[in-house]
Amino acid sequence: MKPSAFFLLAATIALTAAHADEGMWLYTAPPRDQIQAKYGFALTDPWLDHLMHASVRLNSGGSGSFVSGDGLVLTNHHVGADALQKFSTPAHNYLRDGFAAATPADEIKCLDLELNVLQSVEDVTARVNAAIPAGATGDAAALARRSIFAAIEKESREATGLRSDVVTLWQGGAYHLYRSKRYTDIRLVFAPEAQAAFFGGDPDNFEYPRYDLDVCFFRVYENGLPVRPAHFLQWSAAGAQDGDLVFVSGHPGRTSRLLTVPELAFLRDNQFPWQLAGLKRREVLLSAWSGRSEENARRARDDLFGVQNSRKVRDGELAALQDPAFFGAKVAAENSFKQRLAARPDAADALAAYGQIAAAQRLLAGIATRQRLLENGNGFSAQSFGLARALLRAGDERPKPNGERLREFADSHRESFELDLFSDRPIYPDFEILTLGDSLTLLVEQLGAGDPLVQTVLAGQSPRARAATLINTTRVRDVAFRHQLYEGGAAAVAAAQDPLIELARAIDPESRRLRKIAEAQDETKQQAQAVIGKARFALEGAGGYPDATFTLRLSYGLVKGYEENGAHVPALTTFAGLYDRSAAQHNQPPFDLPARWVERKQGLDLATPFNFVSTCDIIGGNSGSPVVNRAGEFVGIIFDGNLQSLSADFGYDDVQSRALSVHSAGILEALRKVYAVPALAAELVAGHR
Amino acid sequence: MKPSAFFLLAATIALTAAHADEGMWLYTAPPRDQIQAKYGFALTDPWLDHLMHASVRLNSGGSGSFVSGDGLVLTNHHVGADALQKFSTPAHNYLRDGFAAATPADEIKCLDLELNVLQSVEDVTARVNAAIPAGATGDAAALARRSIFAAIEKESREATGLRSDVVTLWQGGAYHLYRSKRYTDIRLVFAPEAQAAFFGGDPDNFEYPRYDLDVCFFRVYENGLPVRPAHFLQWSAAGAQDGDLVFVSGHPGRTSRLLTVPELAFLRDNQFPWQLAGLKRREVLLSAWSGRSEENARRARDDLFGVQNSRKVRDGELAALQDPAFFGAKVAAENSFKQRLAARPDAADALAAYGQIAAAQRLLAGIATRQRLLENGNGFSAQSFGLARALLRAGDERPKPNGERLREFADSHRESFELDLFSDRPIYPDFEILTLGDSLTLLVEQLGAGDPLVQTVLAGQSPRARAATLINTTRVRDVAFRHQLYEGGAAAVAAAQDPLIELARAIDPESRRLRKIAEAQDETKQQAQAVIGKARFALEGAGGYPDATFTLRLSYGLVKGYEENGAHVPALTTFAGLYDRSAAQHNQPPFDLPARWVERKQGLDLATPFNFVSTCDIIGGNSGSPVVNRAGEFVGIIFDGNLQSLSADFGYDDVQSRALSVHSAGILEALRKVYAVPALAAELVAGHR
Repeated sequence: MKPSAFFLLAATIALTAAHADEGMWLYTAPPRDQIQAKYGFALTDPWLDHLMHASVRLNSGGSGSFVSGDGLVLTNHHVGADALQKFSTPAHNYLRDGFAAATPADEIKCLDLELNVLQSVEDVTARVNAAIPAGATGDAAALARRSIFAAIEKESREATGLRSDVVTLWQGGAYHLYRSKRYTDIRLVFAPEAQAAFFGGDPDNFEYPRYDLDVCFFRVYENGLPVRPAHFLQWSAAGAQDGDLVFVSGHPGRTSRLLTVPELAFLRDNQFPWQLAGLKRREVLLSAWSGRSEENARRARDDLFGVQNSRKVRDGELAALQDPAFFGAKVAAENSFKQRLAARPDAADALAAYGQIAAAQRLLAGIATRQRLLENGNGFSAQSFGLARALLRAGDERPKPNGERLREFADSHRESFELDLFSDRPIYPDFEILTLGDSLTLLVEQLGAGDPLVQTVLAGQSPRARAATLINTTRVRDVAFRHQLYEGGAAAVAAAQDPLIELARAIDPESRRLRKIAEAQDETKQQAQAVIGKARFALEGAGGYPDATFTLRLSYGLVKGYEENGAHVPALTTFAGLYDRSAAQHNQPPFDLPARWVERKQGLDLATPFNFVSTCDIIGGNSGSPVVNRAGEFVGIIFDGNLQSLSADFGYDDVQSRALSVHSAGILEALRKVYAVPALAAELVAGHR
Repeated sequence: MKPSAFFLLAATIALTAAHADEGMWLYTAPPRDQIQAKYGFALTDPWLDHLMHASVRLNSGGSGSFVSGDGLVLTNHHVGADALQKFSTPAHNYLRDGFAAATPADEIKCLDLELNVLQSVEDVTARVNAAIPAGATGDAAALARRSIFAAIEKESREATGLRSDVVTLWQGGAYHLYRSKRYTDIRLVFAPEAQAAFFGGDPDNFEYPRYDLDVCFFRVYENGLPVRPAHFLQWSAAGAQDGDLVFVSGHPGRTSRLLTVPELAFLRDNQFPWQLAGLKRREVLLSAWSGRSEENARRARDDLFGVQNSRKVRDGELAALQDPAFFGAKVAAENSFKQRLAARPDAADALAAYGQIAAAQRLLAGIATRQRLLENGNGFSAQSFGLARALLRAGDERPKPNGERLREFADSHRESFELDLFSDRPIYPDFEILTLGDSLTLLVEQLGAGDPLVQTVLAGQSPRARAATLINTTRVRDVAFRHQLYEGGAAAVAAAQDPLIELARAIDPESRRLRKIAEAQDETKQQAQAVIGKARFALEGAGGYPDATFTLRLSYGLVKGYEENGAHVPALTTFAGLYDRSAAQHNQPPFDLPARWVERKQGLDLATPFNFVSTCDIIGGNSGSPVVNRAGEFVGIIFDGNLQSLSADFGYDDVQSRALSVHSAGILEALRKVYAVPALAAELVAGHR
């Protein structure tokens, strides 16, 4: 591959109109014309409406879809991993060993998994903008915005009973109200072994060809019965074919394609290096601890996977930004846009907005380290600390008017907040001491041993000894204690004198101060971005798509291989390839095959497609998204992108960048012949039990 | 364990006279009185002389000893690993699989292993001090010192034919000339599998109990024949017993027990966090790359082990310095010493010296990052770069007068320098691109993409693309090319227009500028330390030991267990413990047993001692040191310390801190019954073939 040429192309197209199969499109503004022109296919309203209602979002950070009329939901194993980890024990390691419910009664209820299904989208831009006093900036504008968000969400929630979230699009160019049906009785139906779902482990992650059965089936219940969704995807037994036009419906988490140059430079020179150092530090910590015993490895597995995955993503993103050709193209494109702007008489505000963003970014850079350590919690990495701070702040925030609270305490978020706060998930003190001790060490490194706040935090102990003291004496891991403090409010929290809550209290004034500064500057940036966005529309016309926001989007593209190092990488892999890859690695971890895959190889049709790539424009958060064909049938499920796709945060490219999916035919073959779960396979094909 | 109490004790004793079994003693000033008083044992001159001449130092960074009259040398597997790695190939992976020479003719010659045996020590303090003009500071003093070092070393080398090194002791309080017999024809006789040598891998590293056969036998040749050393250690078949007084003769690399508070604070707040971030970054890089294929893993293995080992060491050292109790004790001890100093009329210079050290340290901190990246090569991590710079600088330095050259180009170091430069060790381009690409990424992160030097280095390419270009086009991996340029001098180097050498040239002015500043400040610190050292002698008397300098030292202590988490950890482990530990971990890597250990278990006496701990004062560099009893017999070999010993850089403690050794009886049992090498076992017992 030629990275420079590749990134140059990506940069060029990212700042102009969408080309090729680019775009994470809003369902409210789908790319009808492009698809009609390029592929002769008409995106109709019923087609879109069906796909939208069959798509689901998981609070563990991924996407999924209804695949039967009896509430069956399919997502990735790595999206379900959080839930699997939480109800696994040393005796029943479902995350590692997999699970298949023999009967509906055997389906296991998840502790705190939440599913949302989008019902409607409403443009509330005018109402939000009207609520912000003319000339308000920074703090005042941020408070006004938070307040109108909370009011709109609360009103919608009360009127419809639906989860209601106001979403900021186009960096503040538009605001949409998303209403979703919320489900919390989610039960595990089937998961393969981690080794089948994540065959090749971290070494093969983001690589292609691949051979991963990265799937996990849940069933959604309501009032004790499986839900009967009005829309679900019909399973295509043949699945995706080379050259097919396909669509992805899912929730890309975040992209940064419209960032200005100073913001990109901040990511390149400050944020990404900081995050990567933290990820690599955590990876070493968890790997070393995992190595000491099997039980340690079990407790750390899900976290470790997440860290390794994020590390590869950030490494790829940083590489894109550090490429002088890529970054130079971003600079050139911005300069060119500014020149075109300058030629217009009404462009002064937009040009000034660039300066405002740069100034806000400098201010944010100045507080970034302290903010990450204190407010973002990087200096206090432990679930117990998160619970302690949630209890402390709930006591302080809940008496305030809804619109004046920190955003996560708004009434509209209350149910999800409480689901998380009162989840009885296992929290292991030894693991908590490990991570808290390491993050306190980081705190001392970064702020310096002489910082008065650091000295308050350590209270005369070494970081590791202090972590042990705090974790061993706090009571926040007791759910009843959390209920008592949450319901008793600030007075009960204070009376409890819990050491970890008191630590959270000690850093809270400084944490809040930093957050307030950051929110004011983010607000300034958002307002400036909105001004630029309006100018961009005026110059280039609308018809694009906003940066990703973990809300439902539609992507499209072709099932298509690519060229790499002079060789053609075919679009599809087969079961035969899985056995070949394992044999080439002498079946050594992480390339070892689960026992049943070895035993049942003879019965398999080895030519069955396993994974495939497409040019669809995706990013993290799309994991678990259904891939459908023109007929709207399920032909695969997104589970990864290749290494070349890691620059997608900043721009799209279809030369080598590819989305990776598990093939619908491969899933069926594995369910029938490897896992011998005929009822589940039959439900998929029939669309009901 | 109670870290605070433990570190407090360590700190207290580190700055006062040596207690307990503390000390890495000079052979020229052994602790005769202490050992006589405490253990009733007289250290006689013949006893010391015998042990000194039987001790060896390896240029790969460890220690060893002669264990037969036919030139057999025993060191650790992990000290020999560098040599094993260098002559291993995909077909013959001696590092992983081990090796046993069936006949003397089968012994394999190492590519660039060098052994030194100390012959004599001469105090040259007066001569060095006399050569430094009165009042000279910084640069001028450093040049004068380098010049007199080079002159003394050259004169000694020419007079005796021995390798001659002037060593700075007591931070400049004394200078000793060490003369060593140098051997370079070193042949591998026996190495166990890496999995036996390093059973438990990184997870069990620095832990105890342990079960590692961390040994490697070489034979030293001269003129094609095995050397017949005048002194070698008699093997004790019974070996170390619980409670025995034992001695360690080896080469502790570096300790920092006499550092001032500002220097310790620099380590805590700057150097150690920086190094740890680099180590963890490298560990992730190598682990991820190793995971992609077995051949990758083989190529990276030795580096990866070294990185993991260093990471654990630094983590432990940083933990000690971040403990407010430990650091507070260091501060208190220094303040107390200053107060006692202030009571003396002649102490003004010594008190002023503290200020000079603090000022120099501030200056060093200001250039630390650039110095590490450029002069220390952290931004250009590849063997090829090291060769390129060596060729460039050799061309520039060798025409200068001996005393004015950079230290590594002094005549006295020439043979060792050339051995390294012309070594035909394998250098893998893919591995070089990996590490150079990552370190160029680090360079951009740390200096910023806008730094002009960074832009020169990248030449418009991304870090990884630039690394590929440089590694694929340089010719420095060709030994003949290196000979040609080295012999042709600066003109030949310039004419070659090698891209990597030209890169080294581009950064050389800035690298040299930084080095010059650093050497001048180090010189200032050294002079100030020497002033403090003299005052310390006046106040406390001599009779101590200087910080470690990778020169031969003597330690002593007892074979003795310890208490941890309320339980007693016995001093010795047995073969039975090895099998138990493996079974408890389901024989999964890194707790898997090599096949022959499984097959031959029945024939073993499972009660045979395997590893043991002692209170001897050691640190990195002592790896491979012989442990001897009162009779001077070999009873074990140092291979590690426990986690609690990691604060030893800053102070000694004998509550929980322990040195780990392989037991002489365990080595014999394994050689005879597991590896079936009776001739080798017989040579050890008889003292000759």
